[in-house]
Amino acid sequence: MEYEEPKFFHVMQYAAGADGDVIDMVSGNPDWEPPAALREALREYADLPPGAFQYPPSEGLLELREAIAERRNVDPDRVVVTNGTGEANYLALACAFERAAGDADDAGDADDAGDEALLMDPVYPYYPGKVDMLGGESTLVPTERDGGLDTDAIREAASGDTALIVLNTPNNPTGAVYDLDAIREVVAVADAVADAVDALVVVDEVYDHFDLTGDFESALALSSDRVIVTGGFSKSMAITGFRVGYGIFPEAYVDDAKTRHMLVNVAGARPSQYAVHHALAETPPDYYAEARDLLADRVDAFTDALDAAGAEYTRPEGAFYVLARFDGFPGTMANVKRLIDEAGVAGMPGEAFGTARDEWVRFALVTPRAEEAAERLADYFADGAPDSR
Amino acid sequence: MEYEEPKFFHVMQYAAGADGDVIDMVSGNPDWEPPAALREALREYADLPPGAFQYPPSEGLLELREAIAERRNVDPDRVVVTNGTGEANYLALACAFERAAGDADDAGDADDAGDEALLMDPVYPYYPGKVDMLGGESTLVPTERDGGLDTDAIREAASGDTALIVLNTPNNPTGAVYDLDAIREVVAVADAVADAVDALVVVDEVYDHFDLTGDFESALALSSDRVIVTGGFSKSMAITGFRVGYGIFPEAYVDDAKTRHMLVNVAGARPSQYAVHHALAETPPDYYAEARDLLADRVDAFTDALDAAGAEYTRPEGAFYVLARFDGFPGTMANVKRLIDEAGVAGMPGEAFGTARDEWVRFALVTPRAEEAAERLADYFADGAPDSR
Repeated sequence: MEYEEPKFFHVMQYAAGADGDVIDMVSGNPDWEPPAALREALREYADLPPGAFQYPPSEGLLELREAIAERRNVDPDRVVVTNGTGEANYLALACAFERAAGDADDAGDADDAGDEALLMDPVYPYYPGKVDMLGGESTLVPTERDGGLDTDAIREAASGDTALIVLNTPNNPTGAVYDLDAIREVVAVADAVADAVDALVVVDEVYDHFDLTGDFESALALSSDRVIVTGGFSKSMAITGFRVGYGIFPEAYVDDAKTRHMLVNVAGARPSQYAVHHALAETPPDYYAEARDLLADRVDAFTDALDAAGAEYTRPEGAFYVLARFDGFPGTMANVKRLIDEAGVAGMPGEAFGTARDEWVRFALVTPRAEEAAERLADYFADGAPDSR
Repeated sequence: MEYEEPKFFHVMQYAAGADGDVIDMVSGNPDWEPPAALREALREYADLPPGAFQYPPSEGLLELREAIAERRNVDPDRVVVTNGTGEANYLALACAFERAAGDADDAGDADDAGDEALLMDPVYPYYPGKVDMLGGESTLVPTERDGGLDTDAIREAASGDTALIVLNTPNNPTGAVYDLDAIREVVAVADAVADAVDALVVVDEVYDHFDLTGDFESALALSSDRVIVTGGFSKSMAITGFRVGYGIFPEAYVDDAKTRHMLVNVAGARPSQYAVHHALAETPPDYYAEARDLLADRVDAFTDALDAAGAEYTRPEGAFYVLARFDGFPGTMANVKRLIDEAGVAGMPGEAFGTARDEWVRFALVTPRAEEAAERLADYFADGAPDSR
């Protein structure tokens, strides 16, 4: 496979090996407490009889699927609990590419889905990696300067070979929260383009609890049988290591997703599912609001300092990240290493996220030292980019 | 995809809906206690700081990989911790089929691995399901009457199109424990057959702790760069729901396996890995020996009753299962349902495991009621098969 070791690990390793004190703004791991009910549920689970330690249903614990379905206002039969949102995205992409494969005997090649995925640029690098693994081709479609969807560009890029369009809102890395109307337009493009098998739209909503605008609407509101929505609890419950995500599939694709999930993973981890189910039932809205407020405060402090540093940036509407551009200091791996060594701040090079933001650096705000990092950046760039001083 | 809902679920559902008391001998879930240290580690984990709840390394917690490597006497770099042995087998099969895919640009089609998998018949049904999902073709190769490897049949079946050969020892469903010399011969076949890319041998050793002969030897002893060994803790620690398995890959395939694992699952569940690591370090050999002795006692009691029922069977050398054949009562789904309704015992129809044992029924011994079930079978068949009475 072509997928190289993510630049993510490369930067993390470099930062870990650096001489001075480095503030990690690379990883997307929340740094705050998980829900108290999650810890309590794990303690409870540890004392359950042996039967509770055996395989959960392949598609996930029924009570968890029902709780997700209730919150998402969908039929529980459409919910497949996965090993994190990552697996849900993998299943969704595989569904889109392989729709005709199971029917190949009846239908012949004419009915095959295409092998192209339209991905928004800048792009979360796992998406093109998964596309490549599944034998598809990625086409990067530029977004608006602020990260919003450019529906005209998507319409122009789409063709009979387009098997699916992948969206992520709130967006990593841009922080954009997509308008539901724009997503509706994208679904209309998916409906219209293909000669034989229409395209699907996969919407990754893993950051849905971190909408800072108050205007986020799930793509499920479109009630489209072309839309697969994925999500999970890694970010909302600050438990990226628990690996509990889910896909909400249109009825026509649920069986394919379940089959692939079973053949790849058999089932997800039951202790994790048990803990998430209890946390979902028992965690008050305040918990989520506090995490969101914490993030909003960090956005304020960090963007104030970016102003002081003379950086260009788009204020994120959601998710965990700020993309920033420093004049004369493009977001290359070399410059990111320089920031680690000379400013004591580790970010992600924009070139890791496709082509649209290769001048930029992504900073993750999931550290209590976000403000301090911003001050370091302001000091470092106080007299302009280092090479132009 | 062609893979149908496993007959497993169908039988389980039928048994659950039956009128009378039914003894479940369908599932492979251990019914005994997990290690005490595993429960204790989960309690500890529940109180760790938030950082411990975030992504483990994609290939698994280092301390767990090192512990596995030490027990398996391999380099830790070869160990990838997976979401159960199921994922490890998936990665291994994918490695075998796609070896040339990454090098397609350099090498052209001539160097592609073939698309055939040789599977032993009777077969654990997930293997052909995975092969089909990966676009390969399964060829079933008969085993000896006692379940042992028929190396001549394997040699005869192998061709330039053979990408891999899958073995499982101790075996589900036959209970056979393969001789290391026979596995060595299979590896020699894999070495010899292919025109361009040699075949790999995948050896699933998930039942390695349930060797009742004392003679089991891991295929790792062959030190072959054609052999991938998979395993896990689902059975040995009685935690099928924790989803902690591993693959031990030859150096040339580790990166491919890690990449696919990352793109599909990102990582496995950290609470599970943490608990397994502690249980591995702190559980005395007695724990494993007691589970094995329990199983051996059940084999004795169950096969005694099969004798009384006039059934044909092979005494298992390992794993959890007994295959039995009752004269005039072939192991069809219909007859298995009849056993549920009329004898109060649920087994798996032999036809679920390929073609070689479709006259047989598989009984799993992971129930405290194994002896009672055997008595019910003896009573039921006391006067011959029901239709011939």
